[in-house]
Amino acid sequence: MKLTILGCHSATPTVSAHPTAQVLEIKGHLFLIDCGEGTQVQLRKYKIKFSRIRRIFISHLHGDHFFGLVGLISTFRLMGRNAELHVYGPKGIKEAILLFLKLGKSYTNYPLYFHELDTTIPELIFEDDKVSVETIPLEHRVYTNGFLFREKPADRTLNVDAARAANVDLSYYNKIKQGFDVENKEGKIIPNKEITFDPPAPKSYAYCSDTAYHPQMVDQVTEVDVMYHESTFLEEHHHLAEKTKHSTAKEAAAIAKKAKIKTLILGHYSGRYGNLEFFRNEAQEVFLGKIELAEDGKRFDFSKK
Amino acid sequence: MKLTILGCHSATPTVSAHPTAQVLEIKGHLFLIDCGEGTQVQLRKYKIKFSRIRRIFISHLHGDHFFGLVGLISTFRLMGRNAELHVYGPKGIKEAILLFLKLGKSYTNYPLYFHELDTTIPELIFEDDKVSVETIPLEHRVYTNGFLFREKPADRTLNVDAARAANVDLSYYNKIKQGFDVENKEGKIIPNKEITFDPPAPKSYAYCSDTAYHPQMVDQVTEVDVMYHESTFLEEHHHLAEKTKHSTAKEAAAIAKKAKIKTLILGHYSGRYGNLEFFRNEAQEVFLGKIELAEDGKRFDFSKK
Repeated sequence: MKLTILGCHSATPTVSAHPTAQVLEIKGHLFLIDCGEGTQVQLRKYKIKFSRIRRIFISHLHGDHFFGLVGLISTFRLMGRNAELHVYGPKGIKEAILLFLKLGKSYTNYPLYFHELDTTIPELIFEDDKVSVETIPLEHRVYTNGFLFREKPADRTLNVDAARAANVDLSYYNKIKQGFDVENKEGKIIPNKEITFDPPAPKSYAYCSDTAYHPQMVDQVTEVDVMYHESTFLEEHHHLAEKTKHSTAKEAAAIAKKAKIKTLILGHYSGRYGNLEFFRNEAQEVFLGKIELAEDGKRFDFSKK
Repeated sequence: MKLTILGCHSATPTVSAHPTAQVLEIKGHLFLIDCGEGTQVQLRKYKIKFSRIRRIFISHLHGDHFFGLVGLISTFRLMGRNAELHVYGPKGIKEAILLFLKLGKSYTNYPLYFHELDTTIPELIFEDDKVSVETIPLEHRVYTNGFLFREKPADRTLNVDAARAANVDLSYYNKIKQGFDVENKEGKIIPNKEITFDPPAPKSYAYCSDTAYHPQMVDQVTEVDVMYHESTFLEEHHHLAEKTKHSTAKEAAAIAKKAKIKTLILGHYSGRYGNLEFFRNEAQEVFLGKIELAEDGKRFDFSKK
């Protein structure tokens, strides 16, 4: 599981501060999460292959999370894309994107599917044999969802030497990997654990932006490996966070603590602060797990334990 | 009259090739012409004061000329703008922009006016005592206008020494500047030309993008000082220009020649060509006036003769 931050700043884009977008690589999928203006250029800059993006998840319809989407969809067309594209986002997103495409007489020549969201309870929105994605309802000025990405448990790994020593017929390979006990050539039941290794623990990633302090999400994200939680403000501007329905670094940390998260990534910084370390300092007074600061272009590799 | 090219490349934006947008400074106005994705960042990069932009002219509703507009309008709001903003563009532009703002519950708190265009003959769309702006109907895959910006003749400049020598009462100052002959203190009519200098000749700028070869525009732009004419392709790809309703550098030059333009600026380059000098070389085989190549960030000063 790898995460590339394309942009992690709030509100207006500048030359050096890009609005929200990130790419999660998980079990062979490349998921684009949010798509602020300029995301397609950031994708190019960080050499992410456009054709590998098949699913885009939009948290809410504020410009800094969404205004790059229509340009990216158009660029896919100009690049001669054939592959399906699935867009998950709040109700209304389809009408808006299609209106822009219609005005430019630029309908896509690849299959484009919209999955519009409007529930306020967690909803499973994508699933295959390797991963699942569900919404995390958040609290913001407009209808907003975070997204919870979970790997499914992988197959067990065959311990070839142990299986041979136990005289197991390796034509049972698939059953063994799936965790079944099997009979050996003498008809004796061999417990699966004796001839396999545990697979890597499945990873999980919760993306939570934008949101006010919202402890209602804690149950859903408990013991998630990695959580990105917005921290637009520091506590000194708590009144602004309340007014605009954003979080402070301390509040993000409080969620991470309650949910027993392993790694907390902070981002969606207001432009008013000179030094991002302020966010880390404030968060680590509350949360004792690992804290990372999102930065445009930063890549995290969570594949290793 | 000064022109700043913010972007001059066709189709998809990249790190180093920005889609179309330019700023024309003319008689105190700062006009933004077209607004591809990322224009607001380019405005910041080239230190153009956002609050001075009061009028935006959109040629057509293809993404590379238009997808930056909603973000710029939103950013104006976040910056606390009060001044009116006027947007001139094809019919449909208002509905599209307002839909995006509505979805984000982000209506502007400054007065925003849309002037929707749908005529196919030249139309005067803005005028004050210093400049006029009219549409230049173009030929493209969607409804498209260029724009013709003209300075109005300035007042004549008083020749103080000559006026005193001719014994003219300088309380006539305003009448003299306006070109009237006046009586001197002895009651003799003094011809205006004897006591004034010619003002600088009024300048004009024609913006023509995107368009197929379209000689119907020639009458309207004849003897304009500066013309930006798209040259997406070179002649070797004439078939692509025809198919996509764009122009080659040679065709742009042919328009400039027929219209007796003083300075031709080429731009809207396809990304397929390694060297922009190819465009100049092709154009100067046809057009003997001055040829400039647009480049992102380039500034032209046409104030001097």
